[in-house]
Amino acid sequence: PQRMLVNKAQGTVLCQQHHAHTVFVNRSLTLENIKCYGFDMDYTLAVYKSPEYESLGFELLRDRLVSMGYPHELLGYMYDPTFPTRGLVYDTTYGNLLKIDSNGNILVCTHGFEYLRGEQVDEYYPNKFIQRDDTNRFYVLNTLFNLPETYLYACLVDFFTKSSRYKNCMKGFKHCDLFMSHRSTFQDIRDAMDYLHDTGTLKERTLKNLDKYVIKDPRLPVLLSRIKEVAKVFLATNSDFSYTEAIMKYLLDFPSGSKKLWRSYFDLVVVDTKKPLFFAGGTVLRQVDTDTGKLRIGTYTGNLQHGTVYSGGSSDIVCDLLDVMGKDILYVGDHIFGDILKSKKRQGWKTFLVVPELVKELHVWADKASECMFEELKHLDIFLAELYHCSFVFQMVTYGMDLCYGKVGSLLRCGSTKTLFASQLLRYADIYSTSCLNLLNYPFSYLFRAPLVLLPHEAAVESQTKE
Amino acid sequence: PQRMLVNKAQGTVLCQQHHAHTVFVNRSLTLENIKCYGFDMDYTLAVYKSPEYESLGFELLRDRLVSMGYPHELLGYMYDPTFPTRGLVYDTTYGNLLKIDSNGNILVCTHGFEYLRGEQVDEYYPNKFIQRDDTNRFYVLNTLFNLPETYLYACLVDFFTKSSRYKNCMKGFKHCDLFMSHRSTFQDIRDAMDYLHDTGTLKERTLKNLDKYVIKDPRLPVLLSRIKEVAKVFLATNSDFSYTEAIMKYLLDFPSGSKKLWRSYFDLVVVDTKKPLFFAGGTVLRQVDTDTGKLRIGTYTGNLQHGTVYSGGSSDIVCDLLDVMGKDILYVGDHIFGDILKSKKRQGWKTFLVVPELVKELHVWADKASECMFEELKHLDIFLAELYHCSFVFQMVTYGMDLCYGKVGSLLRCGSTKTLFASQLLRYADIYSTSCLNLLNYPFSYLFRAPLVLLPHEAAVESQTKE
Amino acid sequence: PQRMLVNKAQGTVLCQQHHAHTVFVNRSLTLENIKCYGFDMDYTLAVYKSPEYESLGFELLRDRLVSMGYPHELLGYMYDPTFPTRGLVYDTTYGNLLKIDSNGNILVCTHGFEYLRGEQVDEYYPNKFIQRDDTNRFYVLNTLFNLPETYLYACLVDFFTKSSRYKNCMKGFKHCDLFMSHRSTFQDIRDAMDYLHDTGTLKERTLKNLDKYVIKDPRLPVLLSRIKEVAKVFLATNSDFSYTEAIMKYLLDFPSGSKKLWRSYFDLVVVDTKKPLFFAGGTVLRQVDTDTGKLRIGTYTGNLQHGTVYSGGSSDIVCDLLDVMGKDILYVGDHIFGDILKSKKRQGWKTFLVVPELVKELHVWADKASECMFEELKHLDIFLAELYHCSFVFQMVTYGMDLCYGKVGSLLRCGSTKTLFASQLLRYADIYSTSCLNLLNYPFSYLFRAPLVLLPHEAAVESQTKE
Amino acid sequence: PQRMLVNKAQGTVLCQQHHAHTVFVNRSLTLENIKCYGFDMDYTLAVYKSPEYESLGFELLRDRLVSMGYPHELLGYMYDPTFPTRGLVYDTTYGNLLKIDSNGNILVCTHGFEYLRGEQVDEYYPNKFIQRDDTNRFYVLNTLFNLPETYLYACLVDFFTKSSRYKNCMKGFKHCDLFMSHRSTFQDIRDAMDYLHDTGTLKERTLKNLDKYVIKDPRLPVLLSRIKEVAKVFLATNSDFSYTEAIMKYLLDFPSGSKKLWRSYFDLVVVDTKKPLFFAGGTVLRQVDTDTGKLRIGTYTGNLQHGTVYSGGSSDIVCDLLDVMGKDILYVGDHIFGDILKSKKRQGWKTFLVVPELVKELHVWADKASECMFEELKHLDIFLAELYHCSFVFQMVTYGMDLCYGKVGSLLRCGSTKTLFASQLLRYADIYSTSCLNLLNYPFSYLFRAPLVLLPHEAAVESQTKE
Repeated sequence: PQRMLVNKAQGTVLCQQHHAHTVFVNRSLTLENIKCYGFDMDYTLAVYKSPEYESLGFELLRDRLVSMGYPHELLGYMYDPTFPTRGLVYDTTYGNLLKIDSNGNILVCTHGFEYLRGEQVDEYYPNKFIQRDDTNRFYVLNTLFNLPETYLYACLVDFFTKSSRYKNCMKGFKHCDLFMSHRSTFQDIRDAMDYLHDTGTLKERTLKNLDKYVIKDPRLPVLLSRIKEVAKVFLATNSDFSYTEAIMKYLLDFPSGSKKLWRSYFDLVVVDTKKPLFFAGGTVLRQVDTDTGKLRIGTYTGNLQHGTVYSGGSSDIVCDLLDVMGKDILYVGDHIFGDILKSKKRQGWKTFLVVPELVKELHVWADKASECMFEELKHLDIFLAELYHCSFVFQMVTYGMDLCYGKVGSLLRCGSTKTLFASQLLRYADIYSTSCLNLLNYPFSYLFRAPLVLLPHEAAVESQTKE
Repeated sequence: PQRMLVNKAQGTVLCQQHHAHTVFVNRSLTLENIKCYGFDMDYTLAVYKSPEYESLGFELLRDRLVSMGYPHELLGYMYDPTFPTRGLVYDTTYGNLLKIDSNGNILVCTHGFEYLRGEQVDEYYPNKFIQRDDTNRFYVLNTLFNLPETYLYACLVDFFTKSSRYKNCMKGFKHCDLFMSHRSTFQDIRDAMDYLHDTGTLKERTLKNLDKYVIKDPRLPVLLSRIKEVAKVFLATNSDFSYTEAIMKYLLDFPSGSKKLWRSYFDLVVVDTKKPLFFAGGTVLRQVDTDTGKLRIGTYTGNLQHGTVYSGGSSDIVCDLLDVMGKDILYVGDHIFGDILKSKKRQGWKTFLVVPELVKELHVWADKASECMFEELKHLDIFLAELYHCSFVFQMVTYGMDLCYGKVGSLLRCGSTKTLFASQLLRYADIYSTSCLNLLNYPFSYLFRAPLVLLPHEAAVESQTKE
Repeated sequence: PQRMLVNKAQGTVLCQQHHAHTVFVNRSLTLENIKCYGFDMDYTLAVYKSPEYESLGFELLRDRLVSMGYPHELLGYMYDPTFPTRGLVYDTTYGNLLKIDSNGNILVCTHGFEYLRGEQVDEYYPNKFIQRDDTNRFYVLNTLFNLPETYLYACLVDFFTKSSRYKNCMKGFKHCDLFMSHRSTFQDIRDAMDYLHDTGTLKERTLKNLDKYVIKDPRLPVLLSRIKEVAKVFLATNSDFSYTEAIMKYLLDFPSGSKKLWRSYFDLVVVDTKKPLFFAGGTVLRQVDTDTGKLRIGTYTGNLQHGTVYSGGSSDIVCDLLDVMGKDILYVGDHIFGDILKSKKRQGWKTFLVVPELVKELHVWADKASECMFEELKHLDIFLAELYHCSFVFQMVTYGMDLCYGKVGSLLRCGSTKTLFASQLLRYADIYSTSCLNLLNYPFSYLFRAPLVLLPHEAAVESQTKE
Repeated sequence: PQRMLVNKAQGTVLCQQHHAHTVFVNRSLTLENIKCYGFDMDYTLAVYKSPEYESLGFELLRDRLVSMGYPHELLGYMYDPTFPTRGLVYDTTYGNLLKIDSNGNILVCTHGFEYLRGEQVDEYYPNKFIQRDDTNRFYVLNTLFNLPETYLYACLVDFFTKSSRYKNCMKGFKHCDLFMSHRSTFQDIRDAMDYLHDTGTLKERTLKNLDKYVIKDPRLPVLLSRIKEVAKVFLATNSDFSYTEAIMKYLLDFPSGSKKLWRSYFDLVVVDTKKPLFFAGGTVLRQVDTDTGKLRIGTYTGNLQHGTVYSGGSSDIVCDLLDVMGKDILYVGDHIFGDILKSKKRQGWKTFLVVPELVKELHVWADKASECMFEELKHLDIFLAELYHCSFVFQMVTYGMDLCYGKVGSLLRCGSTKTLFASQLLRYADIYSTSCLNLLNYPFSYLFRAPLVLLPHEAAVESQTKE
């Protein structure tokens, strides 16, 4: 999508807007070869309004904790969208939120809302490193649904640290006979999340006020219709049928449009997919009675019928029903682990990661670009190298840059180091963009061409040759 | 490191030579902060002469197979260094050697010495993809020690395919009542490797003719001496004491030099390390009686004594004995899995990967560079994009480029796609070079600065801004 | 325990009654050494009335299935207490209920309500043997709570087999496009069970009519009081606090008795124990606010307070809080796996298995005994040996004997072979009885002495010596 | 096999002899239904002379340790067959040999040659219980091949405990800077065992003096010939071909006999079986060239040829080649885990455990029987019950009884408690005997009838009825 830019000042704006509509490429991908498009629903087709939706989640979660017996003072905390970033790791032993790189090196460490400096980090992690395989201790907050929870971890540590009633210890807080371990508050928050999910409270509140919480974009039916002309389309969501029905109806039902049933946009609709299990063994495939929302008993064995909704199943069954192979599928989702990593690693699917945060990331980056920050950044890097031992200065500068993105910095990098999330995005997503709607900006014969990324030794040769 | 290029023609040569002496950087690393240097021995301090050493290994292996009952015609095969590349994957079901990317997509597939084309690959792998977690089926040939074996897999398939006595089947070869499965020849070659190792045949032959098989470089004692002035140094090798003693003596004993004992170059020498187990639980640490080569019974518990040799132990014990933390160690090795990945992932060590093949890789790349191949390559890529459906053309061109590196192409890339090996090199090695001796070209206060690698969306913004 | 038999005719009655009050011994156990008694609640302290309670469970389960879409004809099925036995194994592939021995040999196999004969069994299991480690395929119905479910598996197979609308296949039933696999009906019944549990439907119905469903025995407070005089007492139940509160209040609140709080009978009450996890790592220990039923936030760290109720925790924490060691505890429970096997194997606790079915088993056995069936049985066994090839006769006779116990025979044996359940009872329970109340019949200094069980070669020597 | 006994005095002798020829029955087994007999070789067909063979093993092992650097004083230790018993467990943390029951309760605990009393055991194991699943810590010495090793563990602890040069610690011995952990001596002895095995030293010495080490019994060819008339016969040994060839030739080659090749006694001979892996996935099946002893390359796929020897394979392949099912096979072996437990649990085979120690066990038991010890034992048990708290007395008496069997007592029981070995024998072996030759004493139509073992509650009913 080539757009010509006029002048520098205006250019920045255009450029930001432009990039928000671009699909970025990690590995070359020829749309022409794609015979089947698969979509996740939540945060992919159904994009939740931020920060309204996260605020709702946060408040329900916070109130649940208070009703579980946590102090009423917690009700004073309100969701702050500038604090949490996706992809943080919660250390259930020490109550810290960590931003790490793909090798487990700690990039940022916060305790409550406090940003810890080098020596403080050393007290917790003398090697500035965690063994992230220890999933019993470290909990990765990978999805957009985790944002309210991420913020709540910080709130609780903040509250108890500042409260004069509680004594601070390494592994929690003490108050008379009571020990409030970070591990136990973690478990309480996880339980509260499960409660919201099992009782359907969050879903109910969302459905009551769809306009407030879900973005309705008239381009979505256009996109799905266009795709359906050239390829097969399926929806595979972990949500249940009644929620899926309500959301998809809202998204695809336009007064001006034809009175098409939302299901007619898809060759196959699968709910209750239990991803990532869906990409491994999966579960029994059932037909959903779309009138009652109940599962049909028994397993459907006939040919694929248009408009039929299924529950459960597996990625293998989807391939069988649609008669396509893994490499012919482009799967579009927002969950780096459940959607993208697993479909890529286990099934060899092509993957498109939706990263709504990219709007902000691009904005910050483009601002810096217009300020010729690139060159500065590089020089700064060299300059800092010489000052490296003076890690405080380095940290402060990185911190300053990070603040442009939010309180714990960018989703994707910390100074010149890529986060775990960025590494996984590069490794498992073939293409990525702020929204799946951006596919509309490309013809279906398009080749997404990956930039030729040189290895350091190749880059060294090239740069020398150019001189 | 100095630059000294005169003109383009001469430049290429200089440049190649120059780059062969460079240390390349994946992640920034300040030498000044390194308090301890660790070295693997084989292919790191002791570099084996290629292809002499691989030929020796191949012949011993081949002869062992013939003595196990394999046809005498196999004796006609000689080692061809232009065929095998490190990092290939052997499919024990179909007898193919595969070059794959980090996601398991097949880049190159050979059957015997035949380079399979698209349709042929489809017959074996319809999804052009393998689940590389299936380690029972797919065997990764990760180390330089695997090269003779890699070539032998190809030789056996070549021989039986061409032999009129044997009938070709998908999973092996048939001759009367006998079925020769790829799985069984794989097991035979693995058994023959174990035999060579257990009986010490290869080591014995190497030690008998050290000048023929091992590179002796006068810069090695210089490097170790210089390091020892500024930091602690240890050797951690999976080899046993007697082999280590013979090799290190040869490497560090120079007539002109002081009559220093080789062990005096190290603060700690550990043999029989059983990496990668060494980086996890490890084994019991024993002292080696350097007079007899036997292990002392019991475990040494005193202070570190200079010149003492230990057997077994673990990375944690090494840190304790040397009183250093993981992040203070730069570990130099050649084994991407056993040395680099494990020390990085489990212990947070800094890592330096030795990649002798880089000499060749740089040579090819620089040649292309001098031929302005970069630009061409990029254009070719665009051009090919349009021809993408014509995968045969694409394959042929990639094949042509690959041939410059060797028969199965480069260790690190296949056209614009990086191999599994390259992905692991980028992910787990902080720095890499053709030889550990290249550390001599940098002061011990040096900062290895990683190039700022932009994510695709950042690169997009930057390139536009520049316009 | 007293003996009081008068004559043979009357003796049988007395004897049955007598044995129903006996505690049987697998391994010698000195009550005097027991410093702490632990109790499970359900089916141990709180014994549900049979078959009223199983009927209730069955009906709720059956109705749930119908509301999920299963045919209304199912409503015609009523619970038949003579059919199911605890410890059966459901084969989710073929829909059979199996009675097996500890090695996986099949003793009885039913399909629906049909008792399969040798040749029929061979069609499903040619080796008459299952690999019971394959827990994905074979589901062990180990607890008394599983009885309604066990019966429902048989009902569904019975219904679909007989229905003219459905075609019988090995792995399920076919009706037009629909395939009703045994695996999917299994999953539906499991889901329905979870539904009853999560919604608390069964508990609610039980609490509404406690007199109908739960046996209230005035000896229970007596037993607990007496134990408390000589040892510590705890309750460890997987039920939640509110259900535990209601049930225990009902069990221990007697108008004539002192107005003691039920909790005062225990030194420690732990709800939500998540056995068997409780005997391994366990979960975080929380205090329960007995006024609101809610969990206190944080973990209690003070000394043990009388009457306090906890949630979660682990067997290790219980030992710490009560200051006892595993071998000092006698744990009384009804769940062979969750209560008995795990507490024995992981923690070395002494174990008392409550087996309500023993009343029936003893009745049948004693009847036979009075009929001099023992000798007959032995002779029959010899006689049958000669007829062994005539397996049908053997099966019929065994079947006949089994019918005295119920439709799939005894909980503990099939002819002369012990069931898996019996093997586990012998291996893991130190003592067992029909009810924990039988402890009242023994002084607290009693030694439960195990009969000296001779190994076959020892028995052979002994019998010869006697001649 | 009914033999009439004349008088009590003579009877004891006859009885012992008689029982040494009996096959004992845990589960009924009809020989007539057995279509295939399988044999292990070592300690089954080839019975090693005791204690000559164990002494040889012990001396080779002891000498190897001394050559590894252990003190020369160890050479003073000679093998004492009265000390070790099969089935002991070595605690690599504390250096104790433990005799345990099937639940992990400690029955006997020795440290070196010292028999520890209650309080001493408490210091190591306060709960008198081990979690035997912790196979990293507890090593079960299950086979007759482990006897020399068992004794050597005790010798080493004895030596270092008594040596004035070493200081005793809980986890080992200290001498200056050297710590000799029990774990490291354990590893050294295991390594020495592997060395003896890999170098074939023990086998070589055995073959040089077959008459000294292996029992040659003329009844063996008779047994095999008779079986072959009525059923298929196979040999499945973990030994390699050349050792198998030498041993079997010696066992079956009789001057008076026909000049039959030993292989002609078997329908199938499989060497290198790698049991217990053989009963799970197994390995590739190869044909052995019986002239050279080498493996044929490739896998044999033709029909079963008589006299052919195979290497590797699996139990499934054996069933296929011989066209039999698991339940039709009676497998005769000496290894409770590798031969009996695995063939029973994974494949449903019928099993015959050879227990040479039974000669001694029967001898002791019969002696006691003739002394009317049974009744005494029972009374003693009751008497002891009352004295139970006086555990020292109890232990001393049990110790006294145990001494009749050997220094750590019987293989099968400790007082009235069965050992882990006895529990496994009861659970997994259908029949057992001192020698496989005892099959000769039964017609091939024999029904081995298991005694009707009553459960405690059944026994209670029965005993009352008899009164």
